[in-house]
Amino acid sequence: MTRPLSVGIAGLGTVGAGVLRLLRDNAELVSARAGRGIVVTAVSARDRTRDRGVALQGLRWFDDPVALAADPSIDVVVELIGGSEGPARNLVHAAILAARPVVTANKALIAVHGAELAALAEARGGSIAYEAAVAGGIPVIKALREGLAGNRIDRVAGILNGTCNYILTNMREQGREFADVLADAQRLGYAETDPSFDVDGIDAAHKLAILAAIAFNRPVDFAAVHIEGIRAISAVDIAFARDLGYRIKLLGIARRANLAGVDGVETRVHPCMVPHANPLAHVDGVFNAVVAEGDAVGRIMLEGRGAGAGPTASAVVADLIDLARGRSTPVWGMAGDRLAALPTVPMTSYNGAYYLRLMVVDRAGVIADVTAALRDAGVSLESMIQRGRAPGEAVPVVLVTHETNEAAVRQALAQIEQSDAVLEKPALIRIEPA
Amino acid sequence: MTRPLSVGIAGLGTVGAGVLRLLRDNAELVSARAGRGIVVTAVSARDRTRDRGVALQGLRWFDDPVALAADPSIDVVVELIGGSEGPARNLVHAAILAARPVVTANKALIAVHGAELAALAEARGGSIAYEAAVAGGIPVIKALREGLAGNRIDRVAGILNGTCNYILTNMREQGREFADVLADAQRLGYAETDPSFDVDGIDAAHKLAILAAIAFNRPVDFAAVHIEGIRAISAVDIAFARDLGYRIKLLGIARRANLAGVDGVETRVHPCMVPHANPLAHVDGVFNAVVAEGDAVGRIMLEGRGAGAGPTASAVVADLIDLARGRSTPVWGMAGDRLAALPTVPMTSYNGAYYLRLMVVDRAGVIADVTAALRDAGVSLESMIQRGRAPGEAVPVVLVTHETNEAAVRQALAQIEQSDAVLEKPALIRIEPA
Repeated sequence: MTRPLSVGIAGLGTVGAGVLRLLRDNAELVSARAGRGIVVTAVSARDRTRDRGVALQGLRWFDDPVALAADPSIDVVVELIGGSEGPARNLVHAAILAARPVVTANKALIAVHGAELAALAEARGGSIAYEAAVAGGIPVIKALREGLAGNRIDRVAGILNGTCNYILTNMREQGREFADVLADAQRLGYAETDPSFDVDGIDAAHKLAILAAIAFNRPVDFAAVHIEGIRAISAVDIAFARDLGYRIKLLGIARRANLAGVDGVETRVHPCMVPHANPLAHVDGVFNAVVAEGDAVGRIMLEGRGAGAGPTASAVVADLIDLARGRSTPVWGMAGDRLAALPTVPMTSYNGAYYLRLMVVDRAGVIADVTAALRDAGVSLESMIQRGRAPGEAVPVVLVTHETNEAAVRQALAQIEQSDAVLEKPALIRIEPA
Repeated sequence: MTRPLSVGIAGLGTVGAGVLRLLRDNAELVSARAGRGIVVTAVSARDRTRDRGVALQGLRWFDDPVALAADPSIDVVVELIGGSEGPARNLVHAAILAARPVVTANKALIAVHGAELAALAEARGGSIAYEAAVAGGIPVIKALREGLAGNRIDRVAGILNGTCNYILTNMREQGREFADVLADAQRLGYAETDPSFDVDGIDAAHKLAILAAIAFNRPVDFAAVHIEGIRAISAVDIAFARDLGYRIKLLGIARRANLAGVDGVETRVHPCMVPHANPLAHVDGVFNAVVAEGDAVGRIMLEGRGAGAGPTASAVVADLIDLARGRSTPVWGMAGDRLAALPTVPMTSYNGAYYLRLMVVDRAGVIADVTAALRDAGVSLESMIQRGRAPGEAVPVVLVTHETNEAAVRQALAQIEQSDAVLEKPALIRIEPA
């Protein structure tokens, strides 16, 4: 058997310690499946004294991760520091310059700087593996980039953030408001003290940008993703969703679209009304799921845990086994000179059905004004619901449109918001097909 | 770019024509993802004159598939003839002897002769790829063998036969009996004229045997799979399942088990009562799904179309792209000398909960006799339901057991069947955990 693959891990948080533990616990299994041993020989982290619940004896310690990347006795650099800038970026950059393969779980880094890093890796003969960056232990990168490689992919969509899915699931099951459930999730460790990365959709957008890059074979373009989070979702919308046969989910969606005759790609993260017939409607709690639609395979769905030490370590170790076996794939699925130049279609040209919910004063003529504004913008209404009557007070009114254009809906809402009978910013939630 | 990969396809049925079409329709995409062109240069089939809806000009034609396997200008042999014996087996054997890589969609061949063929391929430096043999276009082989390679797998289970799932789904939705729905399925082309391969569980058992081999890294052992089909499922059981919170599904299940202190593997295909909380309960119609449980990743599920020209071609082309890229994996996930010698645990030592349904004469003392037989065999009862009363006539009685042993249940049923108050062979359906 070949000599073991020598691995250096930078970052010994939950995931770093998890990778160390998994490689030790399953050492025999991993070496048999990899065709050679995979052994961590060096680590880098800030604090040498912290107890991480895993023995570090015998490992070389680097205070500076960049020094670890340059060490010639290390075959693979595993970056588990996190964050799109600073030490993580410097480390990966240095490893690529040294033509050393990199394995990372860092979605922010890949989403924000992946295009540049991938080009550099290709030029230098290095490689970047990042299965752990999207949907934790679910092998979605492998499934899309290799398993469905015979297909033209038309759409990839998913529940990509477990914190948001946990919050939305609890709001639905318990009939509670966002702020309440968030506070609970923070107490239980399912949400960060500063939850904005998750609840504002940024984390999901990092992952979606990566999925879109692979599905459509173009360099990752995080800046082009349209992003809305879940802070504005209220219990009243969740109740209406139930009545209408939907569940509200934060989805990341990338699909082929056409803009004035030119092929392009939509990339967007926002809350959706998901009909029960759509399998994503039934993915609850902290689970993640990704649906891909290919011209030959039809629709496939992958579901599992999207975060945590075990699932993330599972994905990192899978990447290491691929390296040990000599299995490789270009970062975006094909060589740089074959990548597509598909432009991102702006959100204003999106077409779909909409759920709009207003809080209006219950008085004669208000609904007529609202529907007139929709008509003037060319938005066709499928249904209207006003629950309860409270003359002179605020009542919710829900409008469901036929398929229409985002710019038209925005124009109608701008006019509707001007009415003094409309008491809050209207809620807008796009309706997904089944 | 390297010269194109030259492919010879043996078998031009629906799938063979589908592979030809997919490689042509997506030629540019496939060559970019594969790093080189993938071109069919030769075919073999029985009838040269049949119109297959796809042009065959320019392809060399072999009447004898074995001659195709030996042709030195062919880089890869794609076997799409089907069947575990005869031409398919001869072709694959010849290709392996010639150290030529083989791609096949043939579950019967891999399940029945895979152990011998894999050993021969390893000895000769050949390879066998068979993503299309299990669950059609869903990349389950790749997910299990590569994506979850860092995990000790404890269980793999799935809905592996679309025909059975279609029939069971329709029985449930329409309240009809097996024979009725089967006849419809045959008319619609969802079931074969001779449906035994599907409805008796053999096709699912082929696939399960392959999944078990990969999950537990041991040579495939089809003969050891316990197999029951769905012919005995009646509308009355489906109605009881609904009342009890279950759906009846034909599952293939392989899990680690312990027999008298020795590690082993259970491999079984049989109808199951699947609780609603189990994601397999919601996979309906012709869809397939596979659940895998790993020690690091937890539970993941993959769902999609398990059959048809498009999905199967998608998997075949993925295998060809792996070959073109030089990505390879040993047939059972590790080299022959590292494979596990896990024995198959016999069904008599299976432990689980059971649904038993009897048709008994509604008269005093019958239930007491039945429960006494269970008690005598050491089977503990969780609940008993008798629906309706019809003194002196046949009524269904359902017994749900606590976790108990298969041999004990069989012993109790043997005694129960002897009673003249028991009018039909009792129905036995194992209950899956959530």
